[in-house]
Amino acid sequence: MKVAIIFGSRSDSEVMKGAAKALREFNIEFEAFILSAHRVPEQLEKTLIKLENENCECVIAGAGLAAHLPGVIASKTIIPVVGVPINAALNGLDALLSIVQMPKSIPVATVGINNSYNAGMLAVEMLSLKYPEIRKKLIEYRETMKKNFIEENEKGVDL
Amino acid sequence: MKVAIIFGSRSDSEVMKGAAKALREFNIEFEAFILSAHRVPEQLEKTLIKLENENCECVIAGAGLAAHLPGVIASKTIIPVVGVPINAALNGLDALLSIVQMPKSIPVATVGINNSYNAGMLAVEMLSLKYPEIRKKLIEYRETMKKNFIEENEKGVDL
Amino acid sequence: MKVAIIFGSRSDSEVMKGAAKALREFNIEFEAFILSAHRVPEQLEKTLIKLENENCECVIAGAGLAAHLPGVIASKTIIPVVGVPINAALNGLDALLSIVQMPKSIPVATVGINNSYNAGMLAVEMLSLKYPEIRKKLIEYRETMKKNFIEENEKGVDL
Amino acid sequence: MKVAIIFGSRSDSEVMKGAAKALREFNIEFEAFILSAHRVPEQLEKTLIKLENENCECVIAGAGLAAHLPGVIASKTIIPVVGVPINAALNGLDALLSIVQMPKSIPVATVGINNSYNAGMLAVEMLSLKYPEIRKKLIEYRETMKKNFIEENEKGVDL
Amino acid sequence: MKVAIIFGSRSDSEVMKGAAKALREFNIEFEAFILSAHRVPEQLEKTLIKLENENCECVIAGAGLAAHLPGVIASKTIIPVVGVPINAALNGLDALLSIVQMPKSIPVATVGINNSYNAGMLAVEMLSLKYPEIRKKLIEYRETMKKNFIEENEKGVDL
Amino acid sequence: MKVAIIFGSRSDSEVMKGAAKALREFNIEFEAFILSAHRVPEQLEKTLIKLENENCECVIAGAGLAAHLPGVIASKTIIPVVGVPINAALNGLDALLSIVQMPKSIPVATVGINNSYNAGMLAVEMLSLKYPEIRKKLIEYRETMKKNFIEENEKGVDL
Amino acid sequence: MKVAIIFGSRSDSEVMKGAAKALREFNIEFEAFILSAHRVPEQLEKTLIKLENENCECVIAGAGLAAHLPGVIASKTIIPVVGVPINAALNGLDALLSIVQMPKSIPVATVGINNSYNAGMLAVEMLSLKYPEIRKKLIEYRETMKKNFIEENEKGVDL
Amino acid sequence: MKVAIIFGSRSDSEVMKGAAKALREFNIEFEAFILSAHRVPEQLEKTLIKLENENCECVIAGAGLAAHLPGVIASKTIIPVVGVPINAALNGLDALLSIVQMPKSIPVATVGINNSYNAGMLAVEMLSLKYPEIRKKLIEYRETMKKNFIEENEKGVDL
Repeated sequence: MKVAIIFGSRSDSEVMKGAAKALREFNIEFEAFILSAHRVPEQLEKTLIKLENENCECVIAGAGLAAHLPGVIASKTIIPVVGVPINAALNGLDALLSIVQMPKSIPVATVGINNSYNAGMLAVEMLSLKYPEIRKKLIEYRETMKKNFIEENEKGVDL
Repeated sequence: MKVAIIFGSRSDSEVMKGAAKALREFNIEFEAFILSAHRVPEQLEKTLIKLENENCECVIAGAGLAAHLPGVIASKTIIPVVGVPINAALNGLDALLSIVQMPKSIPVATVGINNSYNAGMLAVEMLSLKYPEIRKKLIEYRETMKKNFIEENEKGVDL
Repeated sequence: MKVAIIFGSRSDSEVMKGAAKALREFNIEFEAFILSAHRVPEQLEKTLIKLENENCECVIAGAGLAAHLPGVIASKTIIPVVGVPINAALNGLDALLSIVQMPKSIPVATVGINNSYNAGMLAVEMLSLKYPEIRKKLIEYRETMKKNFIEENEKGVDL
Repeated sequence: MKVAIIFGSRSDSEVMKGAAKALREFNIEFEAFILSAHRVPEQLEKTLIKLENENCECVIAGAGLAAHLPGVIASKTIIPVVGVPINAALNGLDALLSIVQMPKSIPVATVGINNSYNAGMLAVEMLSLKYPEIRKKLIEYRETMKKNFIEENEKGVDL
Repeated sequence: MKVAIIFGSRSDSEVMKGAAKALREFNIEFEAFILSAHRVPEQLEKTLIKLENENCECVIAGAGLAAHLPGVIASKTIIPVVGVPINAALNGLDALLSIVQMPKSIPVATVGINNSYNAGMLAVEMLSLKYPEIRKKLIEYRETMKKNFIEENEKGVDL
Repeated sequence: MKVAIIFGSRSDSEVMKGAAKALREFNIEFEAFILSAHRVPEQLEKTLIKLENENCECVIAGAGLAAHLPGVIASKTIIPVVGVPINAALNGLDALLSIVQMPKSIPVATVGINNSYNAGMLAVEMLSLKYPEIRKKLIEYRETMKKNFIEENEKGVDL
Repeated sequence: MKVAIIFGSRSDSEVMKGAAKALREFNIEFEAFILSAHRVPEQLEKTLIKLENENCECVIAGAGLAAHLPGVIASKTIIPVVGVPINAALNGLDALLSIVQMPKSIPVATVGINNSYNAGMLAVEMLSLKYPEIRKKLIEYRETMKKNFIEENEKGVDL
Repeated sequence: MKVAIIFGSRSDSEVMKGAAKALREFNIEFEAFILSAHRVPEQLEKTLIKLENENCECVIAGAGLAAHLPGVIASKTIIPVVGVPINAALNGLDALLSIVQMPKSIPVATVGINNSYNAGMLAVEMLSLKYPEIRKKLIEYRETMKKNFIEENEKGVDL
């Protein structure tokens, strides 16, 4: 496993699937955990120690509302943490601010509201620094993305 | 000690003095701690265990930005937690949302932005349920508050 | 009766049921009242006097829009008041600000938007200071919460 | 006295002077009161009864933060209430929402943030319906306003 | 006719019915107009002159988005103008700010978002200053409102 | 004169100078007017007729608060109108929304808060469609902008 | 072709149809392109060069979320760019700010959220400066708009 | 050079120094560039190619207002991009949303408003995946941070 995807409630699965999708596109092994910074802090800590021992290289954490999970994880590990604000109230503005406004020294790499796919892609980009095969795939991904975009849209669009 | 006041940085002292002021007006013993949910999580946990052992009955926690401190404390103790959003950015809206929007089961009793005096008063009210002498003082406080307000303002005001 | 739940309109019942649910889980007696700070201020005052006489120990007040109810109650009693912002417009931001931004001296313990369950839990926590049996149940509640969370989620999740 | 100006703290005098200025321009008698919905609710009620007995015809109420004062006054009198949101936090957005979002049946005529002059003018307009001399002055005021504006600005402006 | 209700599009009728409802409860004659500050400014001006000639005593104006209608009307007549922000985007925050933040000298009496009933009630309150029969009805209205509220709710509520 | 710059108060001159600066850089004749949609609507209308007669080709209008001026101008002329939201409250968010959220059919070309220089540049771009010499200058302007930017910054920066 | 309509995803077609509708009402030739500033930057650049060569005179660009497309286009061409914020999250506030708050020198003429019809009308107004027949049609359009508005609404409305 | 720090104006240097400070604490080589997505897009592109050729492993990009720079960089390179929203208006909310709300496939790792130090730390964390000596230092950094925090604060604080 290279990446862990952690979120606080089974009801967030749908939003968090995007992260899994991105990682699968790059054949990056991941494991998903439902864990809560507030309800099972000890379990969370144990899991993070396990992740460090297993050389996990990126944690993607999704949360809504007060959304402390990504920041609490970041404070307990030096593995880079990517935070996904989940819209559960206020259009997700509460979660966005709770995740991105971390204090000095303990950053969370925050992506857009509900945009877990981009969290997966950020993990891919981080891993590409170390793993040449991921880097190669990322270059291809961008090229394929462009080619597909052009193919799909070159026929133009009627308004 | 009946009440603990916890915040994450010496620079927040000025804002948090209001809580101390309110508690002093009721002769309620308190102790103040600078602790951070993100920088010294183990120290925070130790302090909370100590507080529980010493029968602390209310924790007032102030924080700015992502402001996880009050919620993290609430998740680690059953002592009631009062949260003070401190304005460090965005007029304090980020801290307010990060503190008040706690998930189901782990509440933080949130007061207004920078309004630590009200956090102290909320601690007073909670303790007044158990301690008749605090309850008595609280009744007097309200009466004095009214009397003072009337005295100060009955002469009217020129605009 | 130990706790009163007050709100301004029968249509808010659905949102406020969470508070009742939390209190029932702790066998705490409560009574619910539909009262309005603006429409029946005298009735509200009479009820608050009755509550004080009956040694009610916490008032949970829910309101939407300008949401004055919790603050008006807090100004008329020394019983601790927990405020629930109800989303009736602007995603509940109006109610949140109207409840939490109380002036110096008269706090309202504010919980998240529509999160009346947490208001119930805050009442539980306050009462646990005085009633050892509630405190005992609260410790069990947290343990059960953790155990259930782990059981439900240890099988992991597929994304 | 035709108009009462009520606000909660001597520190709001500066902002509320605009209302007095507008009323003086129309020779409308007014009286200013410092009263608080939360700190001296009984005093507020007594004053409102006095105002009704003295045939006061408009109440201008200014408040910041949770800003309940205008709405609480409106609930206790049928005299029209004009509300002035005072900027004490969040650029005054909290006060604006707390004043304007009143529930069905009990309106507050809300003006712009810190714009107490317009509250005075709104009182003038209301009174002009009943008092022909105020109506006459209001027509002149508009004409003078236009004339002055044109005179001051017809020379143009250099950028 | 004592009151004019003006709004910019037939699609706003549903929201604006509340104003009509309030006025009917007080037997106050009104007329409704669909007019636009931006699309038919001359027609709007003509109508306002007609309203002044017919001694209309209050204009209720509803608008969404940039919501200039109430302010433009206020600039062209000395009849008091009540503004209703209609939610057409951004939960109505755009309309609220566009209506309430009028510059010095030309106020609009703003009510809550989509709350045209309160606009009607504000018109009633203004007219009650001049017409004793409306004042009498307003006192009864408040009493009936209280009585009904108590009757409907005294049976309590089950949560 | 090709461009008119209109704003509502001499105190806005400082913010609006940016528009004049941009136009001067392109030797485009302009005239500045202090006019108000609310205080001198007739004067505004007269000026717009004059502008149309003199073949003015763009109106830049700046306004703060409810900021109706640009939209009202747009409703009274077919000359393209560029709107500049001026920060007078709420960081200028009120003015931005009041200007940009115009109803269907009557657009205002809105630029950033206090960014009157960009309003000037937008006028330049519009005129460049018709006047080849302005188009030529605009191409040079962009080139000079790039060259200057590179020259100023190629030495790098020490952090 | 006089106008290009560019947006980043086929799913935005529905919102962007308004721009096409406005242009068709004026018989202005346009072409629509699906292009992305982030996914196919080279393709975007090529298209802009083609547009300049074909003397395109206005680009309408719609985008949601971070909404860089209009600004990126504006930085690569001197053709005037009209930006349409598309609501894809946060009620479109993110897109609005990302489009309108362009830095000094490179403006985007921003219209209301989802209001692509007004973007089309802004293009019409710009072109009317140069093309007398469009100017003539624009004058007729305004007259027809008024006439239709009056006809549709002179029968009044029942509330 | 392992990290590039890019921002659009010399006036942003003060805010961006935090990133340099963090990188220096880890002896990570970096270079700072002033470049603009809108003013010198070609120069930006050239620099990014150079960075890729020199095996730069992280780009930190700071921007205010519409803040397209980080997203435009991310679209043109597969090097991970960390975005710093700079407060230049609206308390930085515009820049935050413009940076974080990137569309699917092209993420920007966003940190808090003006918090460039955390951008530096995020770069450190990313590089620590590949470089064991940085990882070692990061573990020490956290330990030192904790030790210092405890030392500085164990003497407690007087309120």
